[in-house]
Amino acid sequence: MQRTLIAETVAKVGQTVTIKGWVNTRRDHGKIIFIDLRDRTGIVQVVCKETAKDLRSEFVVAVTGEVKARPEKLINKNIPTGSIEIEAQEIEIISPSEELPFDMGKEVLDVELPTLLDYRALTLRHPRVQAIFKVQEVVIDAFRQALKAKDFREFQAPCITPAVAEGGAEVFRVKYFEHEAYLTQSPQLYKSLLVGDFERIFSVNKIFRAEPSVTTRHLTEVVSLDAEFGFIDSWLDVLEMQEYVVRFIFTEVEKKCSRELAMFGATLPKLSDKIPLIKLRDAQQVIFERTGRDVRQEKDLAPEDEREICRWSAEKHNSDLVFVSHFLTKKKPFYIYPDPADPTYAYSVDLIGRGVEWSSGGQRLNDYQQILKNVKEWGVKEEDVELYLQSFRYGVPPLGGFALGAERMTMHILGLSNIREACLFPRDMERVDVRLSTLEEK
Amino acid sequence: MQRTLIAETVAKVGQTVTIKGWVNTRRDHGKIIFIDLRDRTGIVQVVCKETAKDLRSEFVVAVTGEVKARPEKLINKNIPTGSIEIEAQEIEIISPSEELPFDMGKEVLDVELPTLLDYRALTLRHPRVQAIFKVQEVVIDAFRQALKAKDFREFQAPCITPAVAEGGAEVFRVKYFEHEAYLTQSPQLYKSLLVGDFERIFSVNKIFRAEPSVTTRHLTEVVSLDAEFGFIDSWLDVLEMQEYVVRFIFTEVEKKCSRELAMFGATLPKLSDKIPLIKLRDAQQVIFERTGRDVRQEKDLAPEDEREICRWSAEKHNSDLVFVSHFLTKKKPFYIYPDPADPTYAYSVDLIGRGVEWSSGGQRLNDYQQILKNVKEWGVKEEDVELYLQSFRYGVPPLGGFALGAERMTMHILGLSNIREACLFPRDMERVDVRLSTLEEK
Repeated sequence: MQRTLIAETVAKVGQTVTIKGWVNTRRDHGKIIFIDLRDRTGIVQVVCKETAKDLRSEFVVAVTGEVKARPEKLINKNIPTGSIEIEAQEIEIISPSEELPFDMGKEVLDVELPTLLDYRALTLRHPRVQAIFKVQEVVIDAFRQALKAKDFREFQAPCITPAVAEGGAEVFRVKYFEHEAYLTQSPQLYKSLLVGDFERIFSVNKIFRAEPSVTTRHLTEVVSLDAEFGFIDSWLDVLEMQEYVVRFIFTEVEKKCSRELAMFGATLPKLSDKIPLIKLRDAQQVIFERTGRDVRQEKDLAPEDEREICRWSAEKHNSDLVFVSHFLTKKKPFYIYPDPADPTYAYSVDLIGRGVEWSSGGQRLNDYQQILKNVKEWGVKEEDVELYLQSFRYGVPPLGGFALGAERMTMHILGLSNIREACLFPRDMERVDVRLSTLEEK
Repeated sequence: MQRTLIAETVAKVGQTVTIKGWVNTRRDHGKIIFIDLRDRTGIVQVVCKETAKDLRSEFVVAVTGEVKARPEKLINKNIPTGSIEIEAQEIEIISPSEELPFDMGKEVLDVELPTLLDYRALTLRHPRVQAIFKVQEVVIDAFRQALKAKDFREFQAPCITPAVAEGGAEVFRVKYFEHEAYLTQSPQLYKSLLVGDFERIFSVNKIFRAEPSVTTRHLTEVVSLDAEFGFIDSWLDVLEMQEYVVRFIFTEVEKKCSRELAMFGATLPKLSDKIPLIKLRDAQQVIFERTGRDVRQEKDLAPEDEREICRWSAEKHNSDLVFVSHFLTKKKPFYIYPDPADPTYAYSVDLIGRGVEWSSGGQRLNDYQQILKNVKEWGVKEEDVELYLQSFRYGVPPLGGFALGAERMTMHILGLSNIREACLFPRDMERVDVRLSTLEEK
């Protein structure tokens, strides 16, 4: 019999259907056994007789039975199929499951992070864990959709790079035949040089950092959402595009993930008409005035500064997101565009939200001679940025761009406490699928 | 003045516009200079006076001028803006260009492959080179769109893997803190195990092969289009899905890339109602009968066999694509599903077209005990496939899937002679952006 998806059953009262999926939970009530069956479209209650006695959680089964309307007082308003149930006539075991190491039937999976990840293949079946990746998929799709609507072209950024052009400490080395190559830390140079070819370009690509510490917000391999475009009239065009993209993503998540947001009690960041913009030095002055902490000489915002400036933004501008600009030119890579009014500071911008950095970007230099001068001044080897220089040698318009982290965005939208929850297969210095220590022992 | 995109100028006859872009070519006719200006939307002819005398190819400029209809006999039917030209009133140089190393103004770029790649930042500006990546983008988007329409979820497959589970010869090693990790050769194990979580899953991801020879069809880093799904009724469901996806891609390319196909004189593979399917041994028999070459005992199809079976398919079935199935179980990885009628051969399928392999796929084992048995028989270490085994331990339905290479597909659709042309930044044993030998010298 043709399979009916669980989401479709609710419209088939009185009909006999075959549904297929996993046993989510089983409740025995004397001779009656209630099974919650799960497929990719949802969960439905199945009423079984003894035929179900061998079924355990995560068994894959095909159930043939009649779709029955539930009596009014038994309707479960919490699930889309709550008005019906399936009266099983026949149950076929498609694939059995071993006994589970923990209860997968609870609304919130009650396991610690290491267990969540040790049993990743299993825990990804939990509806609330799946919700995280629904949100992530919508974030990534919305990023693409927003930029395609603005005539950006998607490109595939390389992972293997010939050199380390921007700080070499946290880079992974690859034995590349007789040579040494590296895993990319950012597609920055590629996306910028491609502006000379395609004008407007974006990519959804992996970046890698050999982050030697275990924190709640770093992974060694993450998905970077990168955009770059040319013919800007001002560095403010970059902010405007970034704001447009972020708003678009939020709107999409709100529209397509209301159920997922509700599962986490999450709301999207509050935004007013325009995301406020403040320069680093002004932000530091605000922090000094609000807290008495004098950070006015610091070269960057510390985590507590980011939290404070977010509080300020929420209070004064009714916005959970805030742009901070004008970081120190010398602390930024060689391609950053210094503000002509005071070249000590650059047209670089971080988007801060909920106390943490969501994205960074800015205007880049497009004048070949200036780039060449900076390459020397920053101590970058020319041959390490050969393709980049080539692009600007042959004419590139004023340009800028930004990057968002897919996992971080997912994490902060849902209010997750650890970025590992927002990555299907998180990699850090202790784990690549399995705990590396266990591999060592063998 | 607000920028007008070149594609929009044709509808603005009589108006004064500002267009911005690159000087594609310059032709001097006495006091009149003709500039072909290029932006991301196309090329238009600009008529200039002496003001343009400093302009050279690839200068980035803003041209303000009036859009004039061309006289009937001067209309250029080869370009969308051929009915108009811009009479320049003012030209602003936004960014100059050094002199080009070769002529970029020809319809077909006349450089050898090494030069094409040595000057990749520049050569990607050529309209015919850009066309390749338009086609590739459409191929990738169509792959996504086809599968989303069938309820597949997109996932981000990891690049760093803890172990080499499927043949370790051509793998890149990464120094991963105190451990050794590897660059993924395929997301196969991840996509299969995720069927236990999401039922239907696909990814657009990088895969890596330390291919130690320089061929026209191998790169060390490529984009793999991977799909996998559960609850199949038969291995033929996998072929059907694959055929649907490939047809969808062709339809999209035909619809959106007619100009790009024309630039290469390319036509999409001819397809009849259904892509023919032939078993390996039957294909070998056909080859023997047609050519007298006895390959009936071979374990695989050699390149000339693939070409011959394509000729057979085109002649007998009016199809440029053909499925070849039932390769030897023992030549396939541990998860392949043997045909119960004769387990020597497996439910594995290659899609062959225009004489080469386009994709491969098949049904996978879903019975945990059988997988475990094969893992041992194939000599795979259990701990190397721990997450994979975990998934099947807890119940996974019958499943299968396939993978297409984005660069190969682009290459074969357009009839390119070298896969490097179909990759923005091709990596092989001799090149990562620049020729590795040049790095050595420094």
